[in-house]
Amino acid sequence: MRATVIHAPGDIRVENLPEPKILAPTDAVIRTVAACVCGSDLWDYRGINDVAQPTPIGHEYVGVVEETGAEVKDIKPGQFVIGSFFASDNTCPVCRTGYQTSCPHKEFVGGCQAEYIRIPFADGTLVALDGQPDEKFVPSLLTLSDVMGTGWYAAVAAEVKPGSTVVVVGDGAVGLSGVLAARELGAERIIAMSRHASRQQLATEFGATDIVAERGEAGVARIEELTGGIGADSVLECVGTQESMRQAVRATRPGGNVGFVGVPHDVAIDGQELFFSHVALRGGPAPVRRFLPDLIDRVLNGRIEPGKVFDLTLSLDEAAEGYRAMDERRAIKTLLQP
Amino acid sequence: MRATVIHAPGDIRVENLPEPKILAPTDAVIRTVAACVCGSDLWDYRGINDVAQPTPIGHEYVGVVEETGAEVKDIKPGQFVIGSFFASDNTCPVCRTGYQTSCPHKEFVGGCQAEYIRIPFADGTLVALDGQPDEKFVPSLLTLSDVMGTGWYAAVAAEVKPGSTVVVVGDGAVGLSGVLAARELGAERIIAMSRHASRQQLATEFGATDIVAERGEAGVARIEELTGGIGADSVLECVGTQESMRQAVRATRPGGNVGFVGVPHDVAIDGQELFFSHVALRGGPAPVRRFLPDLIDRVLNGRIEPGKVFDLTLSLDEAAEGYRAMDERRAIKTLLQP
Repeated sequence: MRATVIHAPGDIRVENLPEPKILAPTDAVIRTVAACVCGSDLWDYRGINDVAQPTPIGHEYVGVVEETGAEVKDIKPGQFVIGSFFASDNTCPVCRTGYQTSCPHKEFVGGCQAEYIRIPFADGTLVALDGQPDEKFVPSLLTLSDVMGTGWYAAVAAEVKPGSTVVVVGDGAVGLSGVLAARELGAERIIAMSRHASRQQLATEFGATDIVAERGEAGVARIEELTGGIGADSVLECVGTQESMRQAVRATRPGGNVGFVGVPHDVAIDGQELFFSHVALRGGPAPVRRFLPDLIDRVLNGRIEPGKVFDLTLSLDEAAEGYRAMDERRAIKTLLQP
Repeated sequence: MRATVIHAPGDIRVENLPEPKILAPTDAVIRTVAACVCGSDLWDYRGINDVAQPTPIGHEYVGVVEETGAEVKDIKPGQFVIGSFFASDNTCPVCRTGYQTSCPHKEFVGGCQAEYIRIPFADGTLVALDGQPDEKFVPSLLTLSDVMGTGWYAAVAAEVKPGSTVVVVGDGAVGLSGVLAARELGAERIIAMSRHASRQQLATEFGATDIVAERGEAGVARIEELTGGIGADSVLECVGTQESMRQAVRATRPGGNVGFVGVPHDVAIDGQELFFSHVALRGGPAPVRRFLPDLIDRVLNGRIEPGKVFDLTLSLDEAAEGYRAMDERRAIKTLLQP
């Protein structure tokens, strides 16, 4: 099969690899209908994470079930499915509290920019649709696998409620999805921090009521101005740097909440500063499995169209260009069609 | 008047100082009925905080109003009052969300181990009782000024709910108050981490169901054992060191909450570790003003007796011995009678 492999920073190749097989009786193999490139794939592409050896890449997918292991009960061949980027059993005490990405059996679902994917714990990981979806829904359904589920988790972790004032730090696909999530959760005011015209426009389309182009201390000062001097109720931190985390904490009112979903790279939080801020932090890899049934409904009944974050669609064989376009910020997010 | 002054680490003296006067029209002056020594006073006493010059010390108090400024409307001379260690206006948007210790007008109420105290923003800061309380309630009412209010906030910040499993890190007066708060908020299981027999006993009296004497990694391992391998729903961090914070985060289940009220001294929280823990943190100087009316009721109707944390009662003139006894861990907490 055709599959995307990262050989080194900046070196993405689409190659022929053997098709994945059922390894455990709880596995499924799916035929990929669509995959995409994630902002976190760029950490590897840019050499910020090590690439020790050639590695199949990609962790977002929708597809049709080809084959299931002997112990898979609910998921059936032929079903159209969406799953999280982390496989989980969805039955253990941790999964039952809704933190499936901390499941003791969790397994990263890698190598998804490919024609076929092996999915561990198929019954726990995948959610099947009734029938096949209209093609127009595929991009939006694909986003639920990570980016939209992650934006949603950021808003939930930041405790966005009806009437909340929300700030979103980061204007990548996750940040934009966070804007959409905040709107769906009833936020009254949504301030998107962005300095790129096309992203500002999509943020506005997704529900942002204000745009702040300033960053760092100037950005925090602007948020203070916009919130009567006290800060926002909820801040979604969708970047993962020391500066963005500090900006998020300082933009939050005392007693407010930061949801952080940018994987922190060399971030240290000063205990005393956090203490005196009275701000709560909750982060982590989004347990998107928790949100899938609800988000699938919202897509299929036309309430949300998170697929708008894809502003570049390429064939799988053009994956390298998809990475380049995102790296150079020519594209927000690239959809890949096998 | 007689007042306690710290001259240098280890050097506590009770001296004659001028009586405080009304400085702002929103001030009151109270005659102290009881004051006490706080664990955080020991940071100065032990030289961990700088003592740049002789400074009147103490920030916990109950008393009777002597005099009020021209703009004080609700608080009247003769009333028995309790207030927070931070004065606040209690009318601004921050106070109205319940975070009075982040009030933009907040002012630390210092020098309380003395015969008289000036209280800024008397109407915002103080809560008056109906009439004079029975003497037996005075120690418990005194704890509401900081230590019990702080333990309560730790439990609220850690989102203790009916049925919760709770761990309390720290067996000082705040930690013990946190045990009592967790019980009042309906926790089903309360694990107190303590290695001192007298404190273990008081923890048990306050509602602890389990005692863990191990610390650090061994302590975390023991909590894991006691919680089916996943950690506690809520952890109250009542110490403020790097080790206690790490212990608190690691003892919490994914999706659980740490409330931290030990003022952090040289604590840095690793962003990536916090991220992958899925644990939420909220800390800060306790907004005890929020809790005072409820906690006063619980004391006066006999539901709680947090005054049991006082195991040494001295006259104000013996304050130096009160500090020594706490420093040497001969006493949990010292009450001072002017």
